[in-house]
Amino acid sequence: MALGATRQARGCHAVLAGGAPFTARAATAATAVDVPSTSATSVTPLTVLDERTAPERLRETSTLIFDCDGVLWRGSEIIHNAPEALKEFRRQGKRLLFVTNNSSKSRAGYVAKFSSLGLEVAAEEIVSSSYCAAAYLTSQGFGPGGSRPCSKVLLLGWSGVEQELEQAGIPYVGGRALKVPPMDDLDAMKALKVDPDVGAVVVGWDPNFSYSRLVYASIHLRELPGCLLVATNMDCADHIGGGRMMPGTGGLVKAVETASGVSAVNVAKGGEWLLPYLCRTYGLEPAHTAIVGDRMDTDIHLGRQGGLFTCLPLTGVTTLKRLEGLPASEHPDVVVRSVAQLAGLPA
Amino acid sequence: MALGATRQARGCHAVLAGGAPFTARAATAATAVDVPSTSATSVTPLTVLDERTAPERLRETSTLIFDCDGVLWRGSEIIHNAPEALKEFRRQGKRLLFVTNNSSKSRAGYVAKFSSLGLEVAAEEIVSSSYCAAAYLTSQGFGPGGSRPCSKVLLLGWSGVEQELEQAGIPYVGGRALKVPPMDDLDAMKALKVDPDVGAVVVGWDPNFSYSRLVYASIHLRELPGCLLVATNMDCADHIGGGRMMPGTGGLVKAVETASGVSAVNVAKGGEWLLPYLCRTYGLEPAHTAIVGDRMDTDIHLGRQGGLFTCLPLTGVTTLKRLEGLPASEHPDVVVRSVAQLAGLPA
Repeated sequence: MALGATRQARGCHAVLAGGAPFTARAATAATAVDVPSTSATSVTPLTVLDERTAPERLRETSTLIFDCDGVLWRGSEIIHNAPEALKEFRRQGKRLLFVTNNSSKSRAGYVAKFSSLGLEVAAEEIVSSSYCAAAYLTSQGFGPGGSRPCSKVLLLGWSGVEQELEQAGIPYVGGRALKVPPMDDLDAMKALKVDPDVGAVVVGWDPNFSYSRLVYASIHLRELPGCLLVATNMDCADHIGGGRMMPGTGGLVKAVETASGVSAVNVAKGGEWLLPYLCRTYGLEPAHTAIVGDRMDTDIHLGRQGGLFTCLPLTGVTTLKRLEGLPASEHPDVVVRSVAQLAGLPA
Repeated sequence: MALGATRQARGCHAVLAGGAPFTARAATAATAVDVPSTSATSVTPLTVLDERTAPERLRETSTLIFDCDGVLWRGSEIIHNAPEALKEFRRQGKRLLFVTNNSSKSRAGYVAKFSSLGLEVAAEEIVSSSYCAAAYLTSQGFGPGGSRPCSKVLLLGWSGVEQELEQAGIPYVGGRALKVPPMDDLDAMKALKVDPDVGAVVVGWDPNFSYSRLVYASIHLRELPGCLLVATNMDCADHIGGGRMMPGTGGLVKAVETASGVSAVNVAKGGEWLLPYLCRTYGLEPAHTAIVGDRMDTDIHLGRQGGLFTCLPLTGVTTLKRLEGLPASEHPDVVVRSVAQLAGLPA
């Protein structure tokens, strides 16, 4: 499932790093391959670097944060020279992190996916939103030794989040196995019992999402004081190939927010929690950290707000035409044909 | 189903009558039964009229618009003296309209519900949001003789909307019978075919709502140029008794909006279409029209924006305490214990 993905401009604004000690970084002028303008009225000059000119721009970078889909692969297809690029960065002694909004897999599930595509990555280098959900809950006192009196989770989600909750020792109800009877009459709705031990509702990508699940989640949020609502991400929709887009987790979260009256905490790119967490946990220094991502509203926005160096490969959802329509001040620090060029390899 | 109902303040702002020829009406001071203040800091003086003082305030009113749940009944229980109040208004020669955001029933379904509670009402006097959905589509060229080239509707909804579409001669697919296979893998999503004759997706209260339905609705909206998204209402949640609230249609619509990137037209109270439509169709004169409703964000808001006289009976979701916390300028023109008092009858 290609889930951690494209969202519409409307309703999907990324907000980041409220009280974090980051400063915005000015975009720096790039040189090399000039891209011709296609529209005289809406075009801002833009330069795309190549494998000769791009690597120099990462000289000061000690940590690279990679988005996955659209950067390292597209669906089940590896981007040309991506495995070699990662090897080259490792050879240069750079630390690598892989951050994805996709919640359908656990860290372990991603290790298998990376491996199947010829990418050697350790579980600790992977920050999937399924993992983030568990990490956020741990930070809020859930799990072994935690301070939370009601520490069970009600999960509307898939195996990735299930596995991460299990790994973190956080008990949960729901997930793929959640069975709620049909909620098409008042008696059924009135008879439904809340589980008083639930301290958080977690919403991830959930192909079993239903009105009945929405009812069950919303009565817990309404009737249990202090019950948290955690979103693995707020992505609106995802490209799945053939020009088709499919609903992401964002719409499911909005349904739960609307029905319950409770605002969700977004633990993924696009939310305020992730970057301070990464900095705290991995000791990131923003001035020496770069983000490589194909999405302006999560990847590049996260990078810009956090003062990271921003790199956009054109292998994902953001087109040159789209970039050309933006003011130069909004351009990523570096635009390349693919991640390979950042490592000095042909695209 | 008590559906046309309460919504949270957050995310459920009523917006009304964009270009309609209405002017806001100033709230007028009321006299009679004083309500004691309960909090010195947040209280604005408020007066509740009774059956001796309230009727006089409706002397200039020739049309009365009633909300239903919380005004005439609560769930399956009639409000004391409500049938007698309606008879009294009719005796006085006033025209009555019954406007509800609930989409689960058609006009005909409502006639039966009114009748079962001892209320004699004609179908033409009922404006349910299921009816509004069909009326809106007709106004947009759907149905017999209409100008719409793609005039089929994809319905995520219940029998009320099905019946109204049938009544209006608008063909639809979906509704209660909509069967979409499980959408838990990319192949299933890629194999799904859109129906090229669909010109609008209508979302109403839908206890069969599912991720698969969300997929099906969103691909039509994304892949068919000009396909409309119509919401029977945007109500967030509804009181169903025993302190329990259940998800309304609003969250389902937001899920579809988010997944598709298309904004919905809300044809019910809270939206911009309804009041101009009522004025056009029923020849309402705002200066001689009153609205009687229990909700500030739909009923009273609609009345105030449209320049109608506003009456709030305390039999629904808005409490005296809530009203007292508001500035006097936001108070309804008249507050009564129940609709009966507006007609000069005991509450």
